[in-house]
Amino acid sequence: MNSSNIVNNSAPPNPSKSIQDERLQKQFEPTIMHEFLEGSRENSQQILRLYQQMERDPILSSSYKDYELNRLEERTKSAMRINLLSRYIEGDSPSDFHRRLNLLAVYDPSTGIRLSINLGLFVNCIKGNGTAAQYKYWCIDKETTKIKSAYGCFGMTELGHGSNVAGCETTATFDEENDEFIINTPHIGATKWWIGGALHVATHCVVYARLIVKEKDYGVKTFVVPLRDSNHDVMPGITIGDIGGKMGREGVDNGWIQFSNVKIPRFFMLQRFCKVSRNGEVELPPLQQLVYISLLGGRVMMAVDSYRISARFITIAIRYAIGRRQFKKEGGNDNGDGLESKLLDYPLHQRRLIPYLALTYAMAVGTKKLENDHAACLKEFDYAVNSNDKVTLQKAIETTKSLFIDSASLKSTCTWLAGDCITESRQACGGHGYSAYSGFGKTYADWTVQCTYEGDNSVLGMSAGKAIISNTAQVIKKNKKITGSISFLSNAKNYINDELFLKSDDDLQDLSLVLRALEVLICRLASQSMDVLQSIGDNNWDHVSYQRVLLSKLRCHHYLLQTFMSRIDTADESTKQILKDVAKTYAYTSILESFSAEFLSLNVTSPKFMNHLKSNVIPIYLKKLRSQAVALTDSFQQPDMVLNSPIGNYNGDIYENYFKVVKNANPPINTKAPYSGAIEAMLNRPSKEERERYEKSAEAAKILSN
Amino acid sequence: MNSSNIVNNSAPPNPSKSIQDERLQKQFEPTIMHEFLEGSRENSQQILRLYQQMERDPILSSSYKDYELNRLEERTKSAMRINLLSRYIEGDSPSDFHRRLNLLAVYDPSTGIRLSINLGLFVNCIKGNGTAAQYKYWCIDKETTKIKSAYGCFGMTELGHGSNVAGCETTATFDEENDEFIINTPHIGATKWWIGGALHVATHCVVYARLIVKEKDYGVKTFVVPLRDSNHDVMPGITIGDIGGKMGREGVDNGWIQFSNVKIPRFFMLQRFCKVSRNGEVELPPLQQLVYISLLGGRVMMAVDSYRISARFITIAIRYAIGRRQFKKEGGNDNGDGLESKLLDYPLHQRRLIPYLALTYAMAVGTKKLENDHAACLKEFDYAVNSNDKVTLQKAIETTKSLFIDSASLKSTCTWLAGDCITESRQACGGHGYSAYSGFGKTYADWTVQCTYEGDNSVLGMSAGKAIISNTAQVIKKNKKITGSISFLSNAKNYINDELFLKSDDDLQDLSLVLRALEVLICRLASQSMDVLQSIGDNNWDHVSYQRVLLSKLRCHHYLLQTFMSRIDTADESTKQILKDVAKTYAYTSILESFSAEFLSLNVTSPKFMNHLKSNVIPIYLKKLRSQAVALTDSFQQPDMVLNSPIGNYNGDIYENYFKVVKNANPPINTKAPYSGAIEAMLNRPSKEERERYEKSAEAAKILSN
Repeated sequence: MNSSNIVNNSAPPNPSKSIQDERLQKQFEPTIMHEFLEGSRENSQQILRLYQQMERDPILSSSYKDYELNRLEERTKSAMRINLLSRYIEGDSPSDFHRRLNLLAVYDPSTGIRLSINLGLFVNCIKGNGTAAQYKYWCIDKETTKIKSAYGCFGMTELGHGSNVAGCETTATFDEENDEFIINTPHIGATKWWIGGALHVATHCVVYARLIVKEKDYGVKTFVVPLRDSNHDVMPGITIGDIGGKMGREGVDNGWIQFSNVKIPRFFMLQRFCKVSRNGEVELPPLQQLVYISLLGGRVMMAVDSYRISARFITIAIRYAIGRRQFKKEGGNDNGDGLESKLLDYPLHQRRLIPYLALTYAMAVGTKKLENDHAACLKEFDYAVNSNDKVTLQKAIETTKSLFIDSASLKSTCTWLAGDCITESRQACGGHGYSAYSGFGKTYADWTVQCTYEGDNSVLGMSAGKAIISNTAQVIKKNKKITGSISFLSNAKNYINDELFLKSDDDLQDLSLVLRALEVLICRLASQSMDVLQSIGDNNWDHVSYQRVLLSKLRCHHYLLQTFMSRIDTADESTKQILKDVAKTYAYTSILESFSAEFLSLNVTSPKFMNHLKSNVIPIYLKKLRSQAVALTDSFQQPDMVLNSPIGNYNGDIYENYFKVVKNANPPINTKAPYSGAIEAMLNRPSKEERERYEKSAEAAKILSN
Repeated sequence: MNSSNIVNNSAPPNPSKSIQDERLQKQFEPTIMHEFLEGSRENSQQILRLYQQMERDPILSSSYKDYELNRLEERTKSAMRINLLSRYIEGDSPSDFHRRLNLLAVYDPSTGIRLSINLGLFVNCIKGNGTAAQYKYWCIDKETTKIKSAYGCFGMTELGHGSNVAGCETTATFDEENDEFIINTPHIGATKWWIGGALHVATHCVVYARLIVKEKDYGVKTFVVPLRDSNHDVMPGITIGDIGGKMGREGVDNGWIQFSNVKIPRFFMLQRFCKVSRNGEVELPPLQQLVYISLLGGRVMMAVDSYRISARFITIAIRYAIGRRQFKKEGGNDNGDGLESKLLDYPLHQRRLIPYLALTYAMAVGTKKLENDHAACLKEFDYAVNSNDKVTLQKAIETTKSLFIDSASLKSTCTWLAGDCITESRQACGGHGYSAYSGFGKTYADWTVQCTYEGDNSVLGMSAGKAIISNTAQVIKKNKKITGSISFLSNAKNYINDELFLKSDDDLQDLSLVLRALEVLICRLASQSMDVLQSIGDNNWDHVSYQRVLLSKLRCHHYLLQTFMSRIDTADESTKQILKDVAKTYAYTSILESFSAEFLSLNVTSPKFMNHLKSNVIPIYLKKLRSQAVALTDSFQQPDMVLNSPIGNYNGDIYENYFKVVKNANPPINTKAPYSGAIEAMLNRPSKEERERYEKSAEAAKILSN
């Protein structure tokens, strides 16, 4: 027994010491960095104040129990949170509430979207498409914007029509005799589907339906249709059902709706741009796209969400990779302390995680700009509409069009990348990443719908890519000068040759040359796509849809890199050096390496140079960031409550934290399952022969064969 | 009201007609193709027979209800299925039962793994590491192999050690005085973790623990430790708890185990290769890796699973893409019938799905070969051990080593690709892919752990890649001749120059040249990795871990393509043409296009040629396969019960099927939530002023300011 006493008292792992040691090596203050990431000290302090309030609130704060809820429990919990938020919104400034909801969505995306459907989609649809009086009536006077009296949902998608909204089949037929519209679902395919909030909460719905006047179809317009009366009972003619199980977002009460000749007054049509007069004359909007303007805000927020959700999971994965040790150094000595190596000291682990860390920084900065652009655009648009000046309006419409493209490109690219980040981070946490309590599983399932809804990523990517190709074509063929965020396309003619662009280490060190290389690539790819289109000759853009999505991704990275570079100039001196390294790492990995096939096939750089980048340059930058990885993730300042993952807590005590959660969630008292009887009966069952009553025995055979 | 009558009677969508039309265009018989996919007519018929039996069995068959189970319900359902399977196994041939379990795992992976832990890991560990007497005692006489009397679990992973099994910290200390081993968990980090079956079912556990004899540590060996007595009560000294929530596989009763000085007789150590004598002399195995031989079968099966799960979801996505219509042709006319285009007629949609369809064919054929190789290897190994001839044993060990590498490469690459296939297929089904009833969400969550357990994919990939690099090094430096499945490495010297290899369309048409190009790439990449290692000079293989994983992926594709090509020669004449197109599509997309950055940077092909491939060649092959896509997926012959996805049923009536499931699962009767009171109270709450008792009113201010 001596030996066992000696051996078995081996020291337990001490992961929290590892993470504390890392913090001692930090070269900058994470709190200062947080101000950079959030755009200003003011923003940073707002966020920290909101976090504190949420952490202390027993209804708003998260716990491991959130990972154990069934659908009804999740819907109930979400309703409790909405109820509480309806009190906060009465006192919050618009900016505080917007940010509060934004932060809540990082750990409770169901509640985030459930409320955004009302405050974002419904209200913005009325604001964007309705007259000032309509907006005032339904949103202000009814106190919808205060989550009171009325609660809206967004009736766009149908069972048979998603991305092609213009193909919706619900009808709104003008009944001139009664001065009403008749809303109708003609067949199963036109059933409104996936309508969040419709099942249990919503009192009203903005319905996208074909306007039919005097048997003429004017295309899809928007109508306010009350779903429930003031007793919260469903109105006659309206059938609402439960969509039921989903991959995630089980907290949202998605419903389906069928309308059977439901009558609404003529003035329930949203008529800011489109009107039907008493005698059925139809006035159409200046830009059909305006019908979808309410989707813009959601897309912008999804790009921002991509930053925050990536920050959450890269923080968890990097903290785990510091505390977790595995193998002693292969082919070499151990680390001097007799301990196994930290996961993050492995070059492969660095290559898996650090690029996402750098990307998250780029997304933080880039999506913040998009958020600001969007706010400015809305302001310009409102001003233009109110000033009632055609020229100003036309200008505002142009800005809005640009924003449609920018937001399409960023929403699609960033939500895809964030999904990849969650997946890679989970796999980098090995088996423990698969535990429900680590948060990856539920969050991935909740997250991934962002790639599909409010604009399918492929469809959005194609639309952004098309704009790039057609602008490039105008530059090349018509010498057009491009303005706005893609003005670099104006240089297309100089770029579409076969010259190598990135050649030396010096080129790499100058990020403006890397940005230029990306511009060259975009121009060449756009020009190549034009050629493909021309060679096929039928002007069907679908032939270059693959290239269009690719261009949209490249354009997103261009936006992020450009913004990142310009923001570094304004950063605190103490953070500039590491930020430059982060920006380079981002550019080298997420841009040059990720799209190396394209850079090579369009001869923007050479095979030799690309090999050099991958084998020599990238590993050095990964190592640079690795030394500051904990400080860089601490800079996101997400509290343990938001991370909601015991393997990613700030204190780094992964095993104790995790084991405690597992034990709390599943007290190890009962070791027999409720169904143990069946298991035991199986194990202790009599022999097959006995159970067959020995009817197949030799003895039976003898009797039966007589 | 006239207009509404006209417009609202528009025809509902008729997706099932679309799929029937496609079937009329088939150029081969799916049943014949199924024989090719499964290796023989016999195999095909076995599978169809088993499907039929499972479809009819109310316990084994699936339904949409499987998507609505909570953890306990899923564990119970799985226990019921195991109970039933324990009766089937008594009558089945080994091949029938093996295949039955294999097919069940396509729609119920929890039960698949829960049973495989016992029949695969536990039994194979005893068979591989135990003596014939030990195997007979625990597996045959105890009827473990018949799922009776004893039920085993596999105690390898610990809270602090996963991939590095050799670092396990559980101890098995030899107590010479009592001729026993004392099994002990020295600290929290050594808690056995994730042990499937431990929580509720298992009676025994094979425990991986450090053998300590006379204070000397001999490394990790295997021991049989009884967990529960014949009353199914946990034995003293053993603590078992519930791992609780997981991302998926909620049907498996994963537990954690702590041993507190648990005593087992000396002969409970598995002692085929490693023995401790009565007086503490230790005999060690010829190859430490043999301790992990029981993992081989699982890895092989996970590669096969990758084929079947991909087949399931690519079938669903392609059927949906035929029935679903969206937009009329962009920039062109509609399709003559006034209908919107089928999703699969879009080039982008083809580019998203068809490569996975072709890959699934390659995986079917390649993993079938791996399965056969594995069976042959086990046979050879058994023969060698029984013959007790050192030379034969050494040869068998060599074969086993090769299989470790082959299975590592295929398990990791194929499970990753299958995960990608599920994700892409889901996104290609848009919003409806997010419905729980479509099956993607649960299956992805269940599936993705295959990338992590029984050998983390990155770790396996690194081990396979290391073998390739070191073999290449031996060829280059020592002129070694390589045998076995990677014999092509023997040509490395001829390949590691800078010559272009794939140059013309003719080269592409000859798949053996594409295969050769892949070999050239592998040799060049391996040689480049050697150079990197040499230039760093510290012989730390971690510096090329990224390249090692890449090489492992390339090697997997080499195995798949080579096998596919040789199998086509033996295929039925009626299927040869389409199979050639499938193989080419696979090679062009999953190999040449997916690794185009590598093909370009190592100069195996030129930018110009790669552009040609992507822009001109691939679209043509996607179109070829698109015309046969329904027949190619019908060929997997998975019945609706296995697909378990109303949007993917054979009859293609996606909307009716789906709506029916949604309604059955959620009868649209109750439109008020159980928590509706809270919602209504929120909507109808009094004003903020009233709730604040008017204490902040001007009136109160007047009173209070006095």
